[in-house]
Amino acid sequence: MSQTIYNVLSREKETFKPISEDRVMMYVCGPTVYDNSHVGHAKTYVSFDVVVRWFRYCGYRVRYVQNITDVGHLLDDGEDRILKGARREKVEPMEIVERYMRSYFEDMDALGVTRPDISPRASAHVPEQIEMIQALLQEGHAYEVNGSVYFSVESFKDYGKLSGRHVEEMEAGRRVAVRDEKRHPMDFALWIKAPSNHVLQWPSPWGRGYPGWHIECSAMSNKYLGATFDIHGGGVDNIFPHNECEIAQSECANHTAFANYWMLSGTLLVDGVKMSKSLGNFVTIKDALKQYRSEALRLFILSGLYRSPADYSTAALDAATKGTERINTAARRVRAELKHAKADDAANSGRLVDLLDQYRMRFTSAMNDDFNAPLALSALFDLGKDLNTAIDEGSATRTVLEQADAIYRELGGDVLGVIQTEAKGNGAGSAEREASLIQMLIEMRLEARKARDYTRADAIRSRLAEIGILLEDGPKGTTYRIGN
Amino acid sequence: MSQTIYNVLSREKETFKPISEDRVMMYVCGPTVYDNSHVGHAKTYVSFDVVVRWFRYCGYRVRYVQNITDVGHLLDDGEDRILKGARREKVEPMEIVERYMRSYFEDMDALGVTRPDISPRASAHVPEQIEMIQALLQEGHAYEVNGSVYFSVESFKDYGKLSGRHVEEMEAGRRVAVRDEKRHPMDFALWIKAPSNHVLQWPSPWGRGYPGWHIECSAMSNKYLGATFDIHGGGVDNIFPHNECEIAQSECANHTAFANYWMLSGTLLVDGVKMSKSLGNFVTIKDALKQYRSEALRLFILSGLYRSPADYSTAALDAATKGTERINTAARRVRAELKHAKADDAANSGRLVDLLDQYRMRFTSAMNDDFNAPLALSALFDLGKDLNTAIDEGSATRTVLEQADAIYRELGGDVLGVIQTEAKGNGAGSAEREASLIQMLIEMRLEARKARDYTRADAIRSRLAEIGILLEDGPKGTTYRIGN
Repeated sequence: MSQTIYNVLSREKETFKPISEDRVMMYVCGPTVYDNSHVGHAKTYVSFDVVVRWFRYCGYRVRYVQNITDVGHLLDDGEDRILKGARREKVEPMEIVERYMRSYFEDMDALGVTRPDISPRASAHVPEQIEMIQALLQEGHAYEVNGSVYFSVESFKDYGKLSGRHVEEMEAGRRVAVRDEKRHPMDFALWIKAPSNHVLQWPSPWGRGYPGWHIECSAMSNKYLGATFDIHGGGVDNIFPHNECEIAQSECANHTAFANYWMLSGTLLVDGVKMSKSLGNFVTIKDALKQYRSEALRLFILSGLYRSPADYSTAALDAATKGTERINTAARRVRAELKHAKADDAANSGRLVDLLDQYRMRFTSAMNDDFNAPLALSALFDLGKDLNTAIDEGSATRTVLEQADAIYRELGGDVLGVIQTEAKGNGAGSAEREASLIQMLIEMRLEARKARDYTRADAIRSRLAEIGILLEDGPKGTTYRIGN
Repeated sequence: MSQTIYNVLSREKETFKPISEDRVMMYVCGPTVYDNSHVGHAKTYVSFDVVVRWFRYCGYRVRYVQNITDVGHLLDDGEDRILKGARREKVEPMEIVERYMRSYFEDMDALGVTRPDISPRASAHVPEQIEMIQALLQEGHAYEVNGSVYFSVESFKDYGKLSGRHVEEMEAGRRVAVRDEKRHPMDFALWIKAPSNHVLQWPSPWGRGYPGWHIECSAMSNKYLGATFDIHGGGVDNIFPHNECEIAQSECANHTAFANYWMLSGTLLVDGVKMSKSLGNFVTIKDALKQYRSEALRLFILSGLYRSPADYSTAALDAATKGTERINTAARRVRAELKHAKADDAANSGRLVDLLDQYRMRFTSAMNDDFNAPLALSALFDLGKDLNTAIDEGSATRTVLEQADAIYRELGGDVLGVIQTEAKGNGAGSAEREASLIQMLIEMRLEARKARDYTRADAIRSRLAEIGILLEDGPKGTTYRIGN
C-alpha cells in the first residue's frame, strides 16, 4: 500500500515519493516564543507528530526540523514579538526566549509530542540568512533601500502558487498604499535596518539590522535539509504571506524546487470562533492540561482530519476524555487478562487472529490515506468492542490477547499516543508505583467485601476519594479514575 | 552580615560588592554538548546552583548566564568535539547538539539545578564573535595568517594573571614547538580557517571558517552581562588556557575589567583518580541517578567546599544517601506533627524559638562565608537532633514546629535542594498522591494491628515491600522508604 498526501501545492492527494528511498526530510514552521503556547499550537504539532510517528512506524528514517522564531516576527504595529514580551516581563529579550522556548517544550513533552531532531533558532542563523539575501540581491530578486533589503515579488513569476493569490489582484485589491520605500506594495522585507537603540541587531553588508521573519525558514531548511526536501508543514494560517515568501526566497536563491509536498493543518477554533486574547477565549496548553489529560487532548485533535478545522469546547473535550477512558480501559483489560492467560494452541485462535489482522489493515489504510487519524481511531474503538465480547465469551486466547496488546501498544501508543503504554512520572517509576498501590487497595476492598466487612470496604473507597482517586464498579470489575 | 567570596584572581576571600546594588550578574562556563554529562558536571553546576539560590534567597536579583558550546571546542587531535559525536552516531552535527543539550538539561532538571536565565549557544553568536575579533585586530591584539586569526599573548601584559602562569616561563618550559603559523607558541586561535568540506563553517572577513573555543564566552558574556560583570564561574580544569584567554580577549577588546570575582569549583575524582573514559571510571549523571536519589547526589556534592576536590565513591554516596534520609525524615516528622499541633501561646516557645534562630544564623554565617555548604548542612543535621528531642519531650509547640518547618523548606529545600518540599512528578501531583496512598496504608496496618488482625497487618507490609516500599517501625511511629 502506498502513502498518499494531500499536497496543498496541487490541491490534490498525491502518492508520496520521497527524494531518497526510506528517508523523509521534513520541515515544520515552529512557534514564536514570546508567550505561552495555546491549544492551536497543540493541534498543529500533535498533527505533525503523528505524521512523523507514522512514517517511523512504517520504517522511514525521518529528519524532522522545526524552527524556533526568536527574532524578526513583527506585530502589526511593527514591534518585534520578542521585544514586546521583554517589555511586558521587564527582562532581556533572550530571557524571554529561554523562558518561552522552555515552556513550549514542556508543553510538547506533556502532550507526548516527539521532539524535532533539530530545533534551529532564527537568531542563531543570522550569517546563513545574510548569505541567502546576498544571493537574492546578486540575482536581481531583491533590492536595498536605506539599509533595508526587500524581495521583489514581481521578479518571481510563481509568486502566489501555494496560496493561489496573484500579485496583480493583490495589488488591485489593496487600499492606496502608505508611501513607503518598497517598489511594490507586496514586496516583503528580507533585512530590516535597526534603529540604533534596537536591542536585537547584527552587523550586515547593509549596516546594522535584523532579518525579516520569512528568510529564517528558507535559510534553516536549506542548511539542515538541503535546497529541495520532501515535506513542508505548518498551520494553514501561515500560508500567506509566510509560506509563499519562503517558496519565493528559496526557489530564487537555489534555482530549484523547494518542498515537494506542502501539508497545512487546519485552524483551531474555540467554541466556534477564532481564538484571540481580546475575545477572552485564549486557551493555553497549560490551562488545557489542568482540565484534561494529555491523551484526551490528543484524542480530541486526532478525532478530526489534520487539515480540517477543529472546534475546542467543553463538550468536545469531555467526549474526548470519555473516549480516552474507553480505549484505555479496553487496553488495560487486555493486559490484565494477559497476566493469567495460559499458553494455547494458536490454531484455536484463527478466527479472532484474522479479525485482529483486519483491524490492523483498517488502521493502516486509514493512515496511508493522507494520515486519516479519525478513521484509524475508529478501528481501535471497534476493536475494543470485539475484544470485550471475546473476553466475556472466553474465546480470547493468549495468542489473541498478545496480538491485541501489540496493536494497542504500537498503533494506539507508538503511533497515535492516545494509549498509555508505560509509566511516565519521574525516574523512580512513581507513576507505576502509584498504579500498583491503587490496585492493591482495590484488591483489599474486594477482600473486605468478601468477608462481608462493608465498613472497611467503604472506608477504602471513601479514603481513596479524598485523595482524588475515584473507584468505579462495573460489570467487569472495579476500575478507577483520577478526579479533580 | 556581608557575603565573602574566595576570588581566584586575588587568591583571597573578599567582601562581595556587586556593581549594581541588589543585582548579581553572573556567567558560568557551560558544557560542550557532544556526549552525556558526567558527575563532574554535576559537581560544578550543583555548586553554582546553590550560589544562585543563596543569592536569590538573600534578596539579590540574579541574571545567570551559562553558555552551551556547540562549535569550536577541539580535541587534542584537532577534531571538533561536535563533529566527533556526529561521526560516532552517524547524524548531522546539529542533531548531536540537540540530543546532548536536551540530555544535559534533563540531567540538570533531575538534579534540581535551576535553569540559567539565558543559555546562549556558540554557533548562535558567530556575528558577535566576528565583531570582537575585528576589534582585537584593529587594536593590534590579534593577527591574521592564511585565513585564521590568532590572539597575540605578548600584546596583553596581564596574560596569566588568573592562573598565575607567565608567558616567558611557559615558552621556556615548552618543548621545541612544532613549526606552525603562530608568532608565539602560546598564541591561541580566535578564528580558524575551515577546510572546504568542514561541516561547521561560516563566512567571515577572513574567508570561511569557525570561531575558536575561547572567544564565544567573551562575546556572549559581553552581550548578555556587559563588558564588566560581577562573577565568572566554572570548573577549575578550565582555568588555563580557557579562562585566561577569556580575560585576555575581553579586557583587550573592551578596555575595561572583565569579571570582578572568579569562582572556580574543584575537580571531581572517582575512587581517588581523575575520571576518564580510558580508565573505565567514567560515571554519567544518568548512571548515578539510577543508583542514587537526586537529593543524595546533591548532599554528597554539598558535603565538601565547592572549591575543594571531591571523591565520588560507593562509600561516599551511601553515606550521603543515609544523610539525605536522616534529614528528610526529620523534616517529615515536623510536618506530620504540625498536622495535629494545636495553637499555642507563643510565650511558651521562647527557648526553642531562640534555638531555631541560632540555627538559622549558623546556616547564614556559613553561607555568607564563601558559600560554605558543608558547614550550613551541619546546622541542619544538628537541628534535626534537637527537634527530635523536643518532639519526644512534648515541648515542640505549634510555633516551634512552624518555624522549624520554614527552616527546612527555605534552607534545606529552596537553598540547598536536599529536602523534598513538594511533589515532583507530572502535573497531576502524582508524587503527592503516592505519599497519601502510602500514609493511608500505614494507617490501615495500624488499625489491623489494633484489631489484633496480624495476618492483615503483615499482608499490607509485605505487599508494600513487593511494590518497593519498605515500612520501618520505630519508637516514633512507622516511616517508609522507597527501596530498589
